[in-house]
Amino acid sequence: MNLDEKFAYMATGKTYNDLDPILVAERNRSTELTNELNQEADSAKKEQLIRHLFGSAGLAPEVKPNFRCEFGRNIHVGDHFYANYDAVILDGAKVTIGDRVLFGPKVGLYTSNHSFDAREREIGGCIAKPISIGNRCWLAANVTVLPGVTIGNDVIIGAGSVVTHDIPNNVVAVGNPCHVLRKITDADKTGFVGNDFI
Amino acid sequence: MNLDEKFAYMATGKTYNDLDPILVAERNRSTELTNELNQEADSAKKEQLIRHLFGSAGLAPEVKPNFRCEFGRNIHVGDHFYANYDAVILDGAKVTIGDRVLFGPKVGLYTSNHSFDAREREIGGCIAKPISIGNRCWLAANVTVLPGVTIGNDVIIGAGSVVTHDIPNNVVAVGNPCHVLRKITDADKTGFVGNDFI
Amino acid sequence: MNLDEKFAYMATGKTYNDLDPILVAERNRSTELTNELNQEADSAKKEQLIRHLFGSAGLAPEVKPNFRCEFGRNIHVGDHFYANYDAVILDGAKVTIGDRVLFGPKVGLYTSNHSFDAREREIGGCIAKPISIGNRCWLAANVTVLPGVTIGNDVIIGAGSVVTHDIPNNVVAVGNPCHVLRKITDADKTGFVGNDFI
Repeated sequence: MNLDEKFAYMATGKTYNDLDPILVAERNRSTELTNELNQEADSAKKEQLIRHLFGSAGLAPEVKPNFRCEFGRNIHVGDHFYANYDAVILDGAKVTIGDRVLFGPKVGLYTSNHSFDAREREIGGCIAKPISIGNRCWLAANVTVLPGVTIGNDVIIGAGSVVTHDIPNNVVAVGNPCHVLRKITDADKTGFVGNDFI
Repeated sequence: MNLDEKFAYMATGKTYNDLDPILVAERNRSTELTNELNQEADSAKKEQLIRHLFGSAGLAPEVKPNFRCEFGRNIHVGDHFYANYDAVILDGAKVTIGDRVLFGPKVGLYTSNHSFDAREREIGGCIAKPISIGNRCWLAANVTVLPGVTIGNDVIIGAGSVVTHDIPNNVVAVGNPCHVLRKITDADKTGFVGNDFI
Repeated sequence: MNLDEKFAYMATGKTYNDLDPILVAERNRSTELTNELNQEADSAKKEQLIRHLFGSAGLAPEVKPNFRCEFGRNIHVGDHFYANYDAVILDGAKVTIGDRVLFGPKVGLYTSNHSFDAREREIGGCIAKPISIGNRCWLAANVTVLPGVTIGNDVIIGAGSVVTHDIPNNVVAVGNPCHVLRKITDADKTGFVGNDFI
């Protein structure tokens, strides 16, 4: 299989070989690209590197150092994506992130599980499942999102949460494992209309 | 508003504009200063950089790489502050840390919440609340402290805790959300009187 | 005491002086060595640095940047050790890791507690207890392991767990505090026999 065929195979959800030398080389390429990205101070060059690394990106993506990913090519972010310090995205499967999504520091998205069977794990067995995050979500600091999870629109995930299952639209969800705490309502409005500093 | 006026406004607890270009520039300045700090091996130069970055610092502050903060100017630490690897402090509001406070690796202090209303969040709405930590506290590895929290004196926060509410003096507190486990008593003494290596 | 005698004293489990200048110097040496390791792209040179840093290492150890440890000399890993991004191992006591152990990103192993008594902590009191991890374990992302913990063979620790107590062989364990969720059985096999990419 060539690289595209390998990624297509991984996208089927079948157990794949994580130790495949071509995948290892792709991971090392991603490490080198993120090293470069994390040391770059110029915002235009940073954006260029993000566009080179990611599968696709909307307007004005920003990631603070040290950002890390597994491949990059499976990451698709909408407009105004912002990842604060030390985010990690392991994108063995597709990661789809909507518009205006904010990550606090130390957020981790992980699409792949190693095989649960030790013998299969030993020979490189891994299974990848896509992660999807809607528009206008905020994942607070140190949130972990597990393989196969879909998070709706307008969701807030509280700091330190481990998201093991899908989260519907327009809620605050917290905890390990993460559960819905409450709906977001008009009572959450503070009256802010922007531009208060001008 | 000038920068000082902006910080004064943020300190009132009103919703402010996180996307303000002056604040963005200040954050980038902090990223560059912490880049420099994290690459510096000489301890005297490190201390000088910490004093330049922080609002104030007592005797002998130390932070291991990679330390990150949002602005730095709102961070005030007492004597002998020690932050182990990969600490992050987002100091949109004042962060007050007493004497002889120890952070394990990966500790995060976060003073700001994005607006819970998606439309307000979209246009930059943020609210900052101060964090205060007393004297002689130990925050173990991977502890997260949320906006507005006050931690008393002589407190131990267990590894991986998410501190969502105030913690009184002289207790061990653990969990997500963090709750008081027990008081610290004379039974916790081991008889150590120092200098055992000399 | 010379350095070897100090480490032998720490290994007794007695309260030791964490502020000892020789230990501080050893920590700084470890920071410099891991700085070098984390910037190295050549895999043969990386392996050489790991062997220089660790007490011992089996075949083909790999750590992704930024790896950090306290001393290094107390870390002993078996064959095919793999630590993904941003692992931290504080090895005041011995850390024994079996063959084919996998760490997800942001895993932390911590052998030392500061004294719980504030006065003892203030003068540097610390107690170290060994950590042991069996063969073929997988510690998923952001797992924290506390002093004195023994993890058996063929164990999976779920993402974000805080491991406070021993974990037996052949189980999935999750949570904060980490508890056994279930045994791993033949039902966990997916039929993967390797080499599917060739």
